[in-house]
Amino acid sequence: KMLRRVLCTVLFMGALPSLAEVSQGHVSVVLLGATGDLAKKYLWQGLFQLYLDQVSSGHSFTFHGAALMALEPGQRLMFDVLKKLSCPQDESPNRCAVLKDQFLKLSQYHQLKTAENYTVLNREIEMLLHQEGLKEAGRIFYFSVPPFAYTEIARHINSSCRPPPGAWLRVVLEKPFGHDLESAQQLAAELTNFFREEEMYRVDHYLGKQAVAHILPFRDQNRQFLDPIWNQHHVERVEIVLKETVDAKGRTTFYEQYGVIRDVLQNHLTEALMYLTMELPANLSSAEEVLQRKLQAFQSLRGLEKNSAVVGQYQAYASQVREELQKAQDYITTTPTFAGVLIHSDSLRWEGVPFLLTSGKALDERVGYVRVLFKNRAYCTQSETLRDAGYSQCKAKQIIFYIGHGTLNTPAVLVSRNLFKPIMPESSWKEAAVQPDLHIFGQALSDYYVYNPVKERDAYSFLISSIYHGRKDFFITTENLLASWKFWTPLLDSISHQPPRLYPGGVENQHLLDFEMVGGELAFALAEPVELLHPDRPTPSDYKTIQSKFRQSPLVSMWSEELISQLASDIERAASRAVAHSGQFHLALSGGSSPVVLFQRLARHHYAFPWRHTHIWLVDERCIPLTDPESNFFSLHSHLLQSIRVPYFNVHPMPVHLNQRLCVEEDRGTEMYAKEITALVANASFDLVLLGMGTDGHTASLFPHSENGLEGAQTVVLTESPVKPHQRMSLSLPLINKARKVFVLVLGKGKHNITSLISRVGHEPRKWPISGVSPSSGRLVWYVDYEALLG
Amino acid sequence: KMLRRVLCTVLFMGALPSLAEVSQGHVSVVLLGATGDLAKKYLWQGLFQLYLDQVSSGHSFTFHGAALMALEPGQRLMFDVLKKLSCPQDESPNRCAVLKDQFLKLSQYHQLKTAENYTVLNREIEMLLHQEGLKEAGRIFYFSVPPFAYTEIARHINSSCRPPPGAWLRVVLEKPFGHDLESAQQLAAELTNFFREEEMYRVDHYLGKQAVAHILPFRDQNRQFLDPIWNQHHVERVEIVLKETVDAKGRTTFYEQYGVIRDVLQNHLTEALMYLTMELPANLSSAEEVLQRKLQAFQSLRGLEKNSAVVGQYQAYASQVREELQKAQDYITTTPTFAGVLIHSDSLRWEGVPFLLTSGKALDERVGYVRVLFKNRAYCTQSETLRDAGYSQCKAKQIIFYIGHGTLNTPAVLVSRNLFKPIMPESSWKEAAVQPDLHIFGQALSDYYVYNPVKERDAYSFLISSIYHGRKDFFITTENLLASWKFWTPLLDSISHQPPRLYPGGVENQHLLDFEMVGGELAFALAEPVELLHPDRPTPSDYKTIQSKFRQSPLVSMWSEELISQLASDIERAASRAVAHSGQFHLALSGGSSPVVLFQRLARHHYAFPWRHTHIWLVDERCIPLTDPESNFFSLHSHLLQSIRVPYFNVHPMPVHLNQRLCVEEDRGTEMYAKEITALVANASFDLVLLGMGTDGHTASLFPHSENGLEGAQTVVLTESPVKPHQRMSLSLPLINKARKVFVLVLGKGKHNITSLISRVGHEPRKWPISGVSPSSGRLVWYVDYEALLG
Repeated sequence: KMLRRVLCTVLFMGALPSLAEVSQGHVSVVLLGATGDLAKKYLWQGLFQLYLDQVSSGHSFTFHGAALMALEPGQRLMFDVLKKLSCPQDESPNRCAVLKDQFLKLSQYHQLKTAENYTVLNREIEMLLHQEGLKEAGRIFYFSVPPFAYTEIARHINSSCRPPPGAWLRVVLEKPFGHDLESAQQLAAELTNFFREEEMYRVDHYLGKQAVAHILPFRDQNRQFLDPIWNQHHVERVEIVLKETVDAKGRTTFYEQYGVIRDVLQNHLTEALMYLTMELPANLSSAEEVLQRKLQAFQSLRGLEKNSAVVGQYQAYASQVREELQKAQDYITTTPTFAGVLIHSDSLRWEGVPFLLTSGKALDERVGYVRVLFKNRAYCTQSETLRDAGYSQCKAKQIIFYIGHGTLNTPAVLVSRNLFKPIMPESSWKEAAVQPDLHIFGQALSDYYVYNPVKERDAYSFLISSIYHGRKDFFITTENLLASWKFWTPLLDSISHQPPRLYPGGVENQHLLDFEMVGGELAFALAEPVELLHPDRPTPSDYKTIQSKFRQSPLVSMWSEELISQLASDIERAASRAVAHSGQFHLALSGGSSPVVLFQRLARHHYAFPWRHTHIWLVDERCIPLTDPESNFFSLHSHLLQSIRVPYFNVHPMPVHLNQRLCVEEDRGTEMYAKEITALVANASFDLVLLGMGTDGHTASLFPHSENGLEGAQTVVLTESPVKPHQRMSLSLPLINKARKVFVLVLGKGKHNITSLISRVGHEPRKWPISGVSPSSGRLVWYVDYEALLG
Repeated sequence: KMLRRVLCTVLFMGALPSLAEVSQGHVSVVLLGATGDLAKKYLWQGLFQLYLDQVSSGHSFTFHGAALMALEPGQRLMFDVLKKLSCPQDESPNRCAVLKDQFLKLSQYHQLKTAENYTVLNREIEMLLHQEGLKEAGRIFYFSVPPFAYTEIARHINSSCRPPPGAWLRVVLEKPFGHDLESAQQLAAELTNFFREEEMYRVDHYLGKQAVAHILPFRDQNRQFLDPIWNQHHVERVEIVLKETVDAKGRTTFYEQYGVIRDVLQNHLTEALMYLTMELPANLSSAEEVLQRKLQAFQSLRGLEKNSAVVGQYQAYASQVREELQKAQDYITTTPTFAGVLIHSDSLRWEGVPFLLTSGKALDERVGYVRVLFKNRAYCTQSETLRDAGYSQCKAKQIIFYIGHGTLNTPAVLVSRNLFKPIMPESSWKEAAVQPDLHIFGQALSDYYVYNPVKERDAYSFLISSIYHGRKDFFITTENLLASWKFWTPLLDSISHQPPRLYPGGVENQHLLDFEMVGGELAFALAEPVELLHPDRPTPSDYKTIQSKFRQSPLVSMWSEELISQLASDIERAASRAVAHSGQFHLALSGGSSPVVLFQRLARHHYAFPWRHTHIWLVDERCIPLTDPESNFFSLHSHLLQSIRVPYFNVHPMPVHLNQRLCVEEDRGTEMYAKEITALVANASFDLVLLGMGTDGHTASLFPHSENGLEGAQTVVLTESPVKPHQRMSLSLPLINKARKVFVLVLGKGKHNITSLISRVGHEPRKWPISGVSPSSGRLVWYVDYEALLG
């Protein structure tokens, strides 16, 4: 009855649809958490905007606010919110007043607590439709509730609130969508029990920000200008930044569990990153194509390490947490409230370009932007005074998607005038009025083409409208979500106990949070002032290196990460010396998992390594094709060779694959390799052999009781492994013992028992081949991490 | 007698050496060209300074000015110059006046024209020494004469003016030292007939400039700071600049033969470049070690191409030339008076860093500097206002060797304060007084540590003192000179007919001479304004592409450079399509010299080439080890593979070297390669085969009347070449004809006859194997340059 009354009023107004149009169907919107903060601040306003925009679309609407609260106080609370809804500036006050009145009449409060409540809601919707003789178009359920409540609500909706066949169901979910990869997977799996993928709309409200939402269209519409420059050869760096002045006070219950990386970087900034780095699909309007390109872009991201990030915490945070969470005075929190993260993509397009993601609370200004800075490739022949005036190729070239706040205090797209005049859709973006005195990103605003939205629109209004239209482009699919968590979780794990740098907050931060890229890692630019030192931070002396003896040879022991760094440096030093001495460096490398970390370290952090003069040999190989991902050479290639420049002639994979067959005696691969060594390595004495140690005491592919390779004249041998693939090729113990240097790398708890054992036994290579490693005139060094050494 | 008189005066003064010290020996300085411009402006003053500094060194001196002029006018002219010699500021006026008087008395004019004249001079020196009872220490002959006179003077000195055994001879030569590699070699060879290498001092007065001379000591003394950052990973770019406001008026007789590259870049700027890029020797005071490092640095320089430079000419230059050289009104000059050149070093240290060398006349300011700009690796978290105040890692980081003039108007060394505080020798450099309002290179002067010389010294004084001390570090050895000419000559040849961009001169040049790096090349940043267009420049339509048919197949013909660019682009297009279609691209490449240019083009200009998915095969190979520089694979490796990232597995050299022997039938290399092709290339049909054509009509290594490979089932064959090395391995014609695309590249006049012949003959592969190239279902395209096509 109420609905009919409203419809009559509407018809009476004359501006609104006929009943025939209304017959396109009815849409029910259910807002769960109708009296919560987000609903109060954005969602109701967004729903009202939807109503304003779509009232003449042919659909009819009802709006159902819901919460755990009983009907009476809930109703009152909700209508208090609704009464305060504001009219958009571009709306005539008369029309708006009428429509606001209607909107209030179309809105209703429900207590949704028990299964019964959901059944009742469903029945009410059905009854209303029946009474009004309306066909059902669809139902939107907007989850503005804490994530722990998701599963139960989802179950209820699925079991008792699904619309009849022919009408759609759209459930809208607000972050957090989990806490790490595992919890995100679990939540996703639970939701999948109740909803199909196409029914779920995961909101990242950043994607509704006008400047962010325009990144892909901008790239698409300006392909002619961007195609030649949107790549590693032209882009110097990219900054994706969201700075806040507020702190976490009053929200620490939530914040303490999440921190800035989960709260901002994993979702908002990562999505902006994807919009920048993904390859453009041919058809931008296909959500599926966009998703596939985005997932490809995720796959190209280089994994984050501990030192990919710098983290900080504003000084007042700990006490706020102790107060709000009622923790004891000795409660320590390492939750970061500031983070800078360096991200690299290994795609052909972006290889080597640093992407810097930064966000924090209690900073000196509130601002959000995405800044693409291009390389300066020009030289200006005239003097500086002339150079800086007017048009010059020597000025910085940048494209900025200005999300809001800050100096401009409005969303904007800025393109340096010496780059190109961008093509912008006139319906939504207009050239900005000149503000002569404003400077931004080191340049006068007049150095840019500046565009503002024709109509500034709140992100939630935009997203709610997209949900209504069934456009999924601006929402996070399950695959997208999990790809993001997969990317971020290793970093989160590795820094979870790292004490963040403390900062005073606001302008007093000065340069304390400035950071620098150093050899592919991030570090704060300034040493930490003593007065701000975290009292509980271990001092460097707590991490003392154990440097002593193991089996009468030098032992280097540290935590594995430091150990790998040390080993890599030692190898580089050996290489430089060998090259200085003889013009070349013969390095024999083992397979297995431990060296992988070493290979990555060498590839990414040792730019001065004399690779051009280094010969790479294999210590052992599995009898499988070299292109098999399981082969030692393949692993060496992916983790090291691909990233460095060793001449083709200097790479010596073992010839396990000859005449289209593997390790057949009569193909004489071992002989070939032995001859190659004799031909190239003086005295067949490698400069450095890197070995590992198996839990059975094997080394290279020399296993206990092996018939070959433990002694005798043969330098390269075929052996049998107890594990698959059984056939192996290996350097022999006598050849290994001719090397100038032998480094043995042992990592991990799993190696503790054998390490203890080997530390005690004598020279018994038949039982434990590793015990036979004893260079006749070279130097043996053991690199054993704390876990392997101490258990 | 005169000398004795002077010596007595000197002794009387008390400040001067005893006769015992004087007995260290006598030095005769002969200045050839004693009345010329350079002598007037710098050399006499430098010799006077030498006398002032060394009068108490224990050596006695006489100074002999010489010229072609007769005694009487010469004498008068010379003493007019000497009378005007000025006293240095740090010298007491009394002492200086006395010493100047002595200097004049010790100086004498000689006419040196005939052989007789030289004999007389020698006799006079000998007599004087005899009279005064002095031992001879040595003789300095300073050649301040045009280079055409060098050989004759050198012959005379060698035959009649050499000092007696035990005394040294030092001849000082002023540029130009030749006009290109050939003339420099010739001049060097001639001089070598008369002088030993250690006797020759070739002056590059830039090396005497205080800021330039301090580059190596600076690098040496600041190793601790520079070691980590003096490399490609930290240096963004380097600018070496000498700008002049004057033009060439009055000097066009000289200038028209040389131009700015020979006048400034080949010598001054190149030497500064070497000081920056060379590896530091362990011992900086060893001239030999410095030379060796410098020569190594020359070897690492990447060869210059036509597009490595932009050249300009001030508009008044042509008329000045016509007037001064009495040329007709239609005389055209392409001599550049402005040049910007982009140089790359392929050393591990500098790979990828652009070195921009710039010089010109009639520019807007006079200034010289060497600027090393470091990469900005910092992100400053606070807002711009804060960021720019005081100390910040976000400010530019640079090191500048300021040679003189310009804003500072004094030599200086500047180091950004956020880099490090340099170690400077206190005896020669002092921290500069603060000049608060000065800005330089985009920053306030207060952002730098600034050092000025304790005592500003003219370059010639410094160099003359070095000659006297026998220090060869600051002079150009023959090897050094020839290395530089070897580097510059190809560029000079390639641009010799290129019309330079005309510029008005001075501040009116505006942005006309600004230039940009684009894909490893240089180009002016602004399109040329129509009114300045050189009237004689060929318009683009003069270079029309010939696109027609050759042997019934498409023909692409252009000048060779454009042809190579076109071919490289066509190959990239084919690659992208194949990868999009099948995920890989199988490319078979030929050896020989023509493809080298193509390889370089692909390596340097085709960043988007899908190398990771490309397989590289060889069309043919010589039966020599792959590491032999003559092998096709070695050439392919040096010119292409080394610069790109093709996975190791995708590179397929021909197995010509098996079991330590070359192309032995029973090693079955051809069979192996055939099997490899079958295993990896679908249907053994390459995506693209690149062929060449020999003057005998051979292609691949299929020679006329070959027994193998022209027909039959064998896909890879051993063949015989009429030229060494005779043995070859080659793909067969039937296999080549299975390819999807075959491109034949033919370059140069030498191929004109065979090209004409082949255009007419039919399918006669036994006579002309190239005529058998006829893909059964693929596409054949001929790329023939104008020279080969039109002769």
